[in-house]
Amino acid sequence: MGEKKLAVVAFGGNALLRAGQKGTIEEQEANVYETCQSLLELVQKDYNIVIGHGNGPQVGNILLQVNAGEKMYGIPEMPLDICGAYSQGLIGYIIEQQFMNVLKKNNLKKDIITLVTQVVVDKNDPAFQNPTKPIGPYYTEEEMEVLKSKNPKDSFAKDPKGKGWRKVVASPKPVEINNKETIERLAREGKIVVTVGGGGIPVYHVEPGKLQGIDAVIDKDLASSMLAIFINADEFYILTDVPRVCLNFHTPDEIQLSTVTISEAKKYLADGHFTEGSMAPKIRAAINFVENGGKTCIITEAGQLGNPEAGTRIVMG
Amino acid sequence: MGEKKLAVVAFGGNALLRAGQKGTIEEQEANVYETCQSLLELVQKDYNIVIGHGNGPQVGNILLQVNAGEKMYGIPEMPLDICGAYSQGLIGYIIEQQFMNVLKKNNLKKDIITLVTQVVVDKNDPAFQNPTKPIGPYYTEEEMEVLKSKNPKDSFAKDPKGKGWRKVVASPKPVEINNKETIERLAREGKIVVTVGGGGIPVYHVEPGKLQGIDAVIDKDLASSMLAIFINADEFYILTDVPRVCLNFHTPDEIQLSTVTISEAKKYLADGHFTEGSMAPKIRAAINFVENGGKTCIITEAGQLGNPEAGTRIVMG
Repeated sequence: MGEKKLAVVAFGGNALLRAGQKGTIEEQEANVYETCQSLLELVQKDYNIVIGHGNGPQVGNILLQVNAGEKMYGIPEMPLDICGAYSQGLIGYIIEQQFMNVLKKNNLKKDIITLVTQVVVDKNDPAFQNPTKPIGPYYTEEEMEVLKSKNPKDSFAKDPKGKGWRKVVASPKPVEINNKETIERLAREGKIVVTVGGGGIPVYHVEPGKLQGIDAVIDKDLASSMLAIFINADEFYILTDVPRVCLNFHTPDEIQLSTVTISEAKKYLADGHFTEGSMAPKIRAAINFVENGGKTCIITEAGQLGNPEAGTRIVMG
Repeated sequence: MGEKKLAVVAFGGNALLRAGQKGTIEEQEANVYETCQSLLELVQKDYNIVIGHGNGPQVGNILLQVNAGEKMYGIPEMPLDICGAYSQGLIGYIIEQQFMNVLKKNNLKKDIITLVTQVVVDKNDPAFQNPTKPIGPYYTEEEMEVLKSKNPKDSFAKDPKGKGWRKVVASPKPVEINNKETIERLAREGKIVVTVGGGGIPVYHVEPGKLQGIDAVIDKDLASSMLAIFINADEFYILTDVPRVCLNFHTPDEIQLSTVTISEAKKYLADGHFTEGSMAPKIRAAINFVENGGKTCIITEAGQLGNPEAGTRIVMG
């Protein structure tokens, strides 16, 4: 104990629900099973493992389900923190069950513990002045005006493709991760811990000592990065759908990166090589980890985890 | 450590969502806050505490939400195990947050850990031959016939009050509780552990070593009772909405019971003193605990936890 390497692995949305899929449970279970099979590489190398995961497609569906539940059956609509809590139950359960099945299939024995996890944000985070993250159903302008008159604090933005209006919320920085000491200890004892789902359930101190949920989405890579720092992880893996980070992505001049220093990474970010909502937040999460004491962040596809030639390593320098 | 008493407390549905309430988040948070205040009695007596909880009203709402989400937005409807997972996220989050707030308010420091918990059932449990637990929306006979032709294995029952047809599922016995060793250890270290929500997410071995969810509802008092046995709890509290168990309940001959031996309890059960779906499963869970090594089970209202004169104690004999 204590000598084994500790890795935090952030599952991308792809690991859970793929583009073009409807999102049936069978699809999600199969995707997760496959990703967990890839993670066997880390288990077999005797890493201790903490899994963070996204919830974009799932919480998107949940927001529509609670919206429809209100319209059809009059069930009070649930705020975003509660929808995030639903999604942690959903995704955590699927990961825990499928990873258990993968381990059993390979005659490995490890406990998997899934925690419902609150992540504290600062109500003075500047992100709250400029909410940008669209969530939930599309509304007509009239519907949007009605909602806005009911909840004047809510912000809405017009969809650029003309599909209507959507509520937008802030994406504040994670400040504190509830139960991080327990997460670290369970992981260092060899249990696989599933936590900070969807970036964590966003909560804030409405007054000292009193937590309350808040309408916000915490970036899941950043939350996993903060967790990796807090628990002194040796390595931080961000799983995505490409084997390596690229410059000039999807152009004839595309360059795959194998090792990037954080000063190079910052320059590439500033030069606009990375898409917002996709690779850019991953690069920022990687920089955050390495700048705060982490040694290496590896961005790669799940299927490439065992391949020392694959992946992009973000390192100090 | 190890010397303190370990108590398992099963929250009733009432602790979460009360009859006549619509089920808004504000209502549920306030109910849970109040129940957690009552639990302070146990914290101040230095008990280690594990909380199990029901999910009846919540999973009822979730089933309607996922049904409405399919009808309005075409989101694949989720099976009952997944709806249970949603509810563990939801309720676990609310309990954890409100209990943290109660502790802070009282200058107490304890970690609260909420686990997503699978509970294994036996696919040969006779309950699967006779599903009786109604779940989800009411259907017309025509709608029911369409559903039955799509999923011939599903069972439906006609509502006795004429509100239509509902799907009915089995209520099998809990056989194994995932991560029970970790639950016990965390609790004995002084952390408050929230687990087996809604009786646990029902899963079974579809083949050796392979878990899968199943359409079933595990009785939450029985699941908490099994957990209390597994983790060698000293006391098992079942919270309900009456201060004491009664004979001839709600009649002029009503008798409040203060101490009941398990042989008396069995006789009262056989004599039909306790309502199915209400006090009867609580009495069975209490008997199960005491017959399997537990010392005392106390059935009472949350508000009476500090009152040594209140509650009904079920003991050996």
